[in-house]
Amino acid sequence: MQEFEQALHLSATAVVQKLDQLLPVPQDAESRLHEAMRYAVLGGGKRLRPFLVLNSAALFAVNTDCALRVAAAIECIHCYSLVHDDLPCMDDDDMRRGRPSTHKQFDEATAVLAGDALLTLAFDILSRPETHEDPHVRCELVAMFAEAAGARGMVGGQMIDLLAENQNLPVGAIARMQQMKTGALISLACDAGAALGRASPPHRQALHAYAFDLGLAFQIADDLLDSQGDASQIGKTPGKDQAAGKSTFVASMGPDRARTQAQFLSDQAVKHLDLFDKKADLLRQAASYIVNRQA
Amino acid sequence: MQEFEQALHLSATAVVQKLDQLLPVPQDAESRLHEAMRYAVLGGGKRLRPFLVLNSAALFAVNTDCALRVAAAIECIHCYSLVHDDLPCMDDDDMRRGRPSTHKQFDEATAVLAGDALLTLAFDILSRPETHEDPHVRCELVAMFAEAAGARGMVGGQMIDLLAENQNLPVGAIARMQQMKTGALISLACDAGAALGRASPPHRQALHAYAFDLGLAFQIADDLLDSQGDASQIGKTPGKDQAAGKSTFVASMGPDRARTQAQFLSDQAVKHLDLFDKKADLLRQAASYIVNRQA
Repeated sequence: MQEFEQALHLSATAVVQKLDQLLPVPQDAESRLHEAMRYAVLGGGKRLRPFLVLNSAALFAVNTDCALRVAAAIECIHCYSLVHDDLPCMDDDDMRRGRPSTHKQFDEATAVLAGDALLTLAFDILSRPETHEDPHVRCELVAMFAEAAGARGMVGGQMIDLLAENQNLPVGAIARMQQMKTGALISLACDAGAALGRASPPHRQALHAYAFDLGLAFQIADDLLDSQGDASQIGKTPGKDQAAGKSTFVASMGPDRARTQAQFLSDQAVKHLDLFDKKADLLRQAASYIVNRQA
Repeated sequence: MQEFEQALHLSATAVVQKLDQLLPVPQDAESRLHEAMRYAVLGGGKRLRPFLVLNSAALFAVNTDCALRVAAAIECIHCYSLVHDDLPCMDDDDMRRGRPSTHKQFDEATAVLAGDALLTLAFDILSRPETHEDPHVRCELVAMFAEAAGARGMVGGQMIDLLAENQNLPVGAIARMQQMKTGALISLACDAGAALGRASPPHRQALHAYAFDLGLAFQIADDLLDSQGDASQIGKTPGKDQAAGKSTFVASMGPDRARTQAQFLSDQAVKHLDLFDKKADLLRQAASYIVNRQA
């Protein structure tokens, strides 16, 4: 686990460096926007999605700088979604990663705009020749990102999540919501690595199946942390989902069954990687890290 | 002028039909999101930016369906920006195109998400092979859209606009802000038509120069309408810019000079089209329509 955490840390450092290069330098009359974009993206986080991009791409010997650009793009999408999700009209969260959330540090209007600009920046990054020499691959990446982040993916999941407050959703509906809200971007990370590497269909399918199970396991672990975690460790307000009457896996199946289910999904995720050699070991370790993490 | 208005109307009808096809059909637990997206996009409007895409593309004999897809994508971007701009934390506008704005018809959270999903949908549309057979062109379109809509374009302009409330900006700073906030998308419309048609550099430059002047003329005309227009005609609350202490061309130079300047820019825009034959006549007419419109 220590080896894995070191690898995760190294990958996060490389991604932050790439993000720093790609984010606009604060200047001119609109510098407040650039500052808010940097605040929202450069303020820590495990950088799990970028890690999955980099380690999926590494299976196919993708050029590291290309993979880092795609990793940065997915983090822009993830961070934009957090900025908008934290807004008072949405989840109304004042803390994020142990710091004031973007609308508390700046203001609501700036947070809305910074989120919009980060989403747009992700597509900017993907479209440029530096991301991949083949424009077919770049178009495929743009399409994959748009599908995973849009109305049938992440944003659709956020809509269901908001509508589900104070409702008892059946576990199947919770799984669909979480698959859209969180799972779509985790699957995207692995799919994007495979697309960058022009992987064969069996390799693509294996990685996609891995990411699907990993995404659900991740969400269940997240629900467990929210219900039992500690604010100083998780960097946001714990118990919020419960207070908001949200439909979560833990609320639906209880903490013990949820923990068993997360472990089952994690083991199943690892099995999907059987057709890869030891180059996939960090991805295998990611599956157990995700269900055992304390933050 | 009547011939022009008929052409504008015909183009709007075709674009609305294409948008209707491309927008998600309301279904599943997230249908409220799809409904809000459709409400925000299908509720009327002159569809000026799509008109400019279609008529720029027509100069280079671009396939109509391809041009319609790009026209639909630019309208998704424009409409998302209106939805977010109308939010209480931004311009706080209850009316848009004579109807309740999206957050009044639905709620703020749904409006934030619908805007996010529309922005994402625009890139989805651009990335697909149906938009252009050549992936180089599609990547170029994605890059152009991201640049025009992002932190250095439209969103940057919105940030400056918000910061400029109750400040007296010099006219040069107002021109830069408006060029980013409104002009960038109007230029994009013409640039995208030229990109679809793989136009030669002189043709691209001419169209870009036309759109640049047109964009400023459009904004000055918009300021004049806001300061002197009638709510039932312009479909939104008039006098709002003034009440909010916004820096506008009209506030800075007075209505008479503003009107003269808009006419000058419109004439100059038309001159940039000299290297095109009568196929550019509708674009020429658009320039005078824009400064003479009453709504």
